[in-house]
Amino acid sequence: MHEFNLIKNYFQKLSKKSISSLNLNDDVFFDKKKRLVVSIDTYTEGNHFIDFRKPDLVIKKIIRSSISDLISKGVQPKYYFLSGSGNKESFSKKNISKLVKSLKTEQKKYKILLSGGDTVFSNKLSFTITSIGYSKNIIYRNKAKPNDDIYVTGNLGDSYIGLLTLKNKIKLNKKLKEYFIKQYYEPKLALILVNKLQKIANASIDISDGLLADLSKLINDQKLTFKINLQKIPISQNLTQIIDEKKLSKIKLISNGDDYQILFTASPNKRRIIKMIADKEKIKITNIGTIQKKIKKSSIVNEKNIEISLKNKGYLHQF
Amino acid sequence: MHEFNLIKNYFQKLSKKSISSLNLNDDVFFDKKKRLVVSIDTYTEGNHFIDFRKPDLVIKKIIRSSISDLISKGVQPKYYFLSGSGNKESFSKKNISKLVKSLKTEQKKYKILLSGGDTVFSNKLSFTITSIGYSKNIIYRNKAKPNDDIYVTGNLGDSYIGLLTLKNKIKLNKKLKEYFIKQYYEPKLALILVNKLQKIANASIDISDGLLADLSKLINDQKLTFKINLQKIPISQNLTQIIDEKKLSKIKLISNGDDYQILFTASPNKRRIIKMIADKEKIKITNIGTIQKKIKKSSIVNEKNIEISLKNKGYLHQF
Repeated sequence: MHEFNLIKNYFQKLSKKSISSLNLNDDVFFDKKKRLVVSIDTYTEGNHFIDFRKPDLVIKKIIRSSISDLISKGVQPKYYFLSGSGNKESFSKKNISKLVKSLKTEQKKYKILLSGGDTVFSNKLSFTITSIGYSKNIIYRNKAKPNDDIYVTGNLGDSYIGLLTLKNKIKLNKKLKEYFIKQYYEPKLALILVNKLQKIANASIDISDGLLADLSKLINDQKLTFKINLQKIPISQNLTQIIDEKKLSKIKLISNGDDYQILFTASPNKRRIIKMIADKEKIKITNIGTIQKKIKKSSIVNEKNIEISLKNKGYLHQF
Repeated sequence: MHEFNLIKNYFQKLSKKSISSLNLNDDVFFDKKKRLVVSIDTYTEGNHFIDFRKPDLVIKKIIRSSISDLISKGVQPKYYFLSGSGNKESFSKKNISKLVKSLKTEQKKYKILLSGGDTVFSNKLSFTITSIGYSKNIIYRNKAKPNDDIYVTGNLGDSYIGLLTLKNKIKLNKKLKEYFIKQYYEPKLALILVNKLQKIANASIDISDGLLADLSKLINDQKLTFKINLQKIPISQNLTQIIDEKKLSKIKLISNGDDYQILFTASPNKRRIIKMIADKEKIKITNIGTIQKKIKKSSIVNEKNIEISLKNKGYLHQF
């Protein structure tokens, strides 16, 4: 899918930096004057979700993945528009009932409202979600400062094990299987931070492609690098357990994305307030490393404090 | 595709009338408080466009069809978001260059700006366009009044002949062939009316499914019917010519949609101002009939003043 990034470059000439501020080079569109924030994403079967055997869960994943873009920018999503392409089997009454039931739960959980959409016939199942919110400001990419701390919310890697489980590529006991599949379909978004993030973060992004890939994107226009402490990257107890049991690579697991946690940088003088917020809201926010000037290379150090080479392993461009 | 309308009913419970004012029962979303108007449409190959052999023309049709929704509601479209699903062949550098060139022309012509999007890999080609505009008000459906005049802009039916030509279902000389194919791919939107429409129209919709089908939609929640004079329905000289030559049915031709002209109703006391606007802006606006109370059935009278039965011919639900 690398070529598809090229398209963005082709299309950039059609956008205006002065108006959008982002020039198609961020995850959301922001019209500052009108205080409008928009995100659009397309999800296709076999690509963004395995199959449609569990429509109730697939739609949850899609909705969360879509509004995650806004939440990571410090913007409360308000409306979503759902366009579905599929055949009569996919959009059977039974499946539609399941979709609607899930959407109802998601709407309540994330305070969003369906506001329109389209349904067209196609043999290939896909969904396009447009998410809209209103905000005076957003947190941009490429605004990290040297010496900023790097933070992530929640835990990483669980979703990828869920995917491997669904693909029968890993064997787990029933309890663990259920746990990881749930993390894959129902990533826990850090909505609770949405109104606080703009006060603490210099730059932010949601983790969809993998921690290191998204961190690279976060600073791609800047003369900055990062240093990450592998041991500090937060993972669940269940993931710790199976990494031990199955001798898996932690760095590989956290580089596969679909986590939908918030990755942000903040000045070191925000450490106290960030800890206070985390304690008060009972949310996990972990300092995993530092932004540095480009005189040093980006690096990740393992538990033995040895630098792991990133360039050759493709962790930066996993997708 | 009739079943797909059912879906709308399922999804209606997820929307709130108090906020959207439309409750998924209009062509655009309108947040009156924030003055935001949004439309979302999905177009798939083989369904909404024949094939992708002319990407430069296909994208023009798609963009115009999408912003037509806003224009028909008296709203100037401002931004559009383009999400494309396709394979490497569809999104080759050559094709992308053609797309970008066409989008550039469309942006200038309709004063719109690309503001984001997504590109995903899929074997089935499709596009989803989200169009956004800002407006204090919009023209709704279901606000027609008894005795309102019924108007359409431009000419109807040309686009359908273009489609038949592309499908080799009708044989025309080179000049006519080119004319009709152009009308199919590049419908002339009545953008010039966009700032005047709210002052004159009681209800409006764009003609995408066919004159009679869209007129039925326009008043579907009201205890109203319509009376249309077939002879008054505006068609081009070229269409008049081939209707004569090939003994085609005018009512059938104007019932196939894809015209993207504005269909609106207005009080009879607006006749003078509508004529003035049409003259000043050099745009064709034709009075084709009347809205009436439901004590009379909807009807269309032909050139011999004989009522044509609509119910049995499916003109009301062509698609």
